[in-house]
Amino acid sequence: MNTPATRDAFEARLRRIGAERYHDLHPFHGLLHGGQCSPDQVRAWVINRYYYQSRIPMKDAAFLSRVEDPALRRTWRSRIEDHDGSDGNEGGIARWLRLASAVGLDPDYVASCAGVLPATRFAVDAYVRFVRERTLLEAVASSLTELFAPKIHAERIEGLLRNYEFADDSSLSYFRKRLTEAPKDVAFGLAWVLDHADTADRQDAAADALIFKTDVLWSQLDALHSAYVAPARIPPGAWRPGEGLALARAS
Amino acid sequence: MNTPATRDAFEARLRRIGAERYHDLHPFHGLLHGGQCSPDQVRAWVINRYYYQSRIPMKDAAFLSRVEDPALRRTWRSRIEDHDGSDGNEGGIARWLRLASAVGLDPDYVASCAGVLPATRFAVDAYVRFVRERTLLEAVASSLTELFAPKIHAERIEGLLRNYEFADDSSLSYFRKRLTEAPKDVAFGLAWVLDHADTADRQDAAADALIFKTDVLWSQLDALHSAYVAPARIPPGAWRPGEGLALARAS
Repeated sequence: MNTPATRDAFEARLRRIGAERYHDLHPFHGLLHGGQCSPDQVRAWVINRYYYQSRIPMKDAAFLSRVEDPALRRTWRSRIEDHDGSDGNEGGIARWLRLASAVGLDPDYVASCAGVLPATRFAVDAYVRFVRERTLLEAVASSLTELFAPKIHAERIEGLLRNYEFADDSSLSYFRKRLTEAPKDVAFGLAWVLDHADTADRQDAAADALIFKTDVLWSQLDALHSAYVAPARIPPGAWRPGEGLALARAS
Repeated sequence: MNTPATRDAFEARLRRIGAERYHDLHPFHGLLHGGQCSPDQVRAWVINRYYYQSRIPMKDAAFLSRVEDPALRRTWRSRIEDHDGSDGNEGGIARWLRLASAVGLDPDYVASCAGVLPATRFAVDAYVRFVRERTLLEAVASSLTELFAPKIHAERIEGLLRNYEFADDSSLSYFRKRLTEAPKDVAFGLAWVLDHADTADRQDAAADALIFKTDVLWSQLDALHSAYVAPARIPPGAWRPGEGLALARAS
C-alpha cells in the first residue's frame, strides 16, 4: 500500500491542480476582463453562467441529503442560504439576476434557462450528479475550486468596472459578496478534505474530484467561446443575440 | 386537453427535428467528409467518438434493465450484440478500434478513453443517464436519431474513401455494417414511439427527447471543433497530437 503524502504536500498537490487547470486560464476570461467582449458576448456569459448558479444550491442539497453528521450539515447549509437568500440577504441567485438586468436582459428569460447551451447543461448536470453519487470526500473535494475563486472575482470586478458601462456596485454585487463567502466555505472544505484524505487512494480520489470540477468549469467557457466568439457557431436552439432582452431595450 | 397529432403528422414532426438539428449539419462533418481534416483531426474524432460507441451498449443495458416486457427486451437486446459482438460478429466496438488502428492510433490507448474531451464525457454520460431515468417512451424516442444516420454513414464512407489513404473496406467496416443495422433498429423504434405517443403530452415528451439527443450529438462535434480545428483550444488533460500513436508510427 502506498504511503499518503503529508498534509502540506497534499495541499500543494491540490493547489497545483488549480494553477494548471482552473478556468482563469481560459482565453474567454481574458476577453471578458479586458473589455474585449461585445455586449452580446457578455449576455451569453450571463445567461449560461446563470445555469451554473441555479444548480449550485441543488448540488449542495444533494450533498446535505447524504450527510449523517448534523454538525457537518449545519455548516454546509450556509452555502444554500448564500445562494437562495435568507432574512436580510437576497442571495447570490437574485444578485446574478441583477447583473442580467444590468446587461439588458430580461431576468425572467434568464431564470427560465431557455437559451442555455446544451454543453453548459451537460457539464453542470454532471457536477450535480457527481456530488449526488460519489463519496462525501469526493463531493467536498470537488468544491475546492473555490480556493482559486477569490483571485478571479477580484480581477473580474476590477476588469468589468474599468471596461463596461453596465458595471457598478449593484450589478457586480454577486462577485463582491463571493469575496467574503467563498473563503469561509473553502477554509472549512479544505480542512475537511485534508483531514479525511488519510490514505494515498483517498488523496488520489480527492485530487481526481478536483480535476473533474476544473473540467466542468473549463467546458462551460469552451462552449461559450465556441458558440459566441468569432468564428461563432451557435448550436441549434441556443440563445441568439436579440433574444431575451428587457423590454425597454428591445423596443 | 390537447388533441394529439395524427400518426403521420407526428412522424413528420420527428423527421423535421432531424432536418433542422441532426449533426450532419455541423461544419466538422463537412471538413471530415470533404478531406479537409488533418490526420490529427481525424484521430481526435476517432478518439472522442469511441467514447460514445463505448457507452451505447451500457445505455441499451440500462434500457433493458427497466423493461418488463420480454418481447421488447428480446428485440432491443440485438443492439447490445451489434456493438459488443457475438458468435461470427466481432461487433461495432471492435470495428471502431480497427478504424483507430488504421489512422495510426494505438487501439489500447483509444479503448482506455484517456484523452477524451471532458465535454464529450459530459454529453455522452448525460445520454446514458437520460435513458436510465426518463420514461421508456423518452428513452426509445432518444434513439430515433438513427432515422437520420444511414444518410450520414453513406456520405461518410464515400467521402472518406475518396479523400483519405487510411480508408478501405476494413477500416470503414463499422459504417458499412451500420447501414444495415440502424434501419432495422429504427424501424422498430419509430413504430414503437408512434404507437406509444398517444397523447399530445407524450408526443411533446418524445419530440423533446429526440431534440435532447440531437443536442448530445451536436455538442460532441462542437467540442471537437473547438479543441482541434484552428484556432484550436485543447482543454487541459485532453489528447494532444502525438499521444497514443501505435508504436510502428510513433517510433
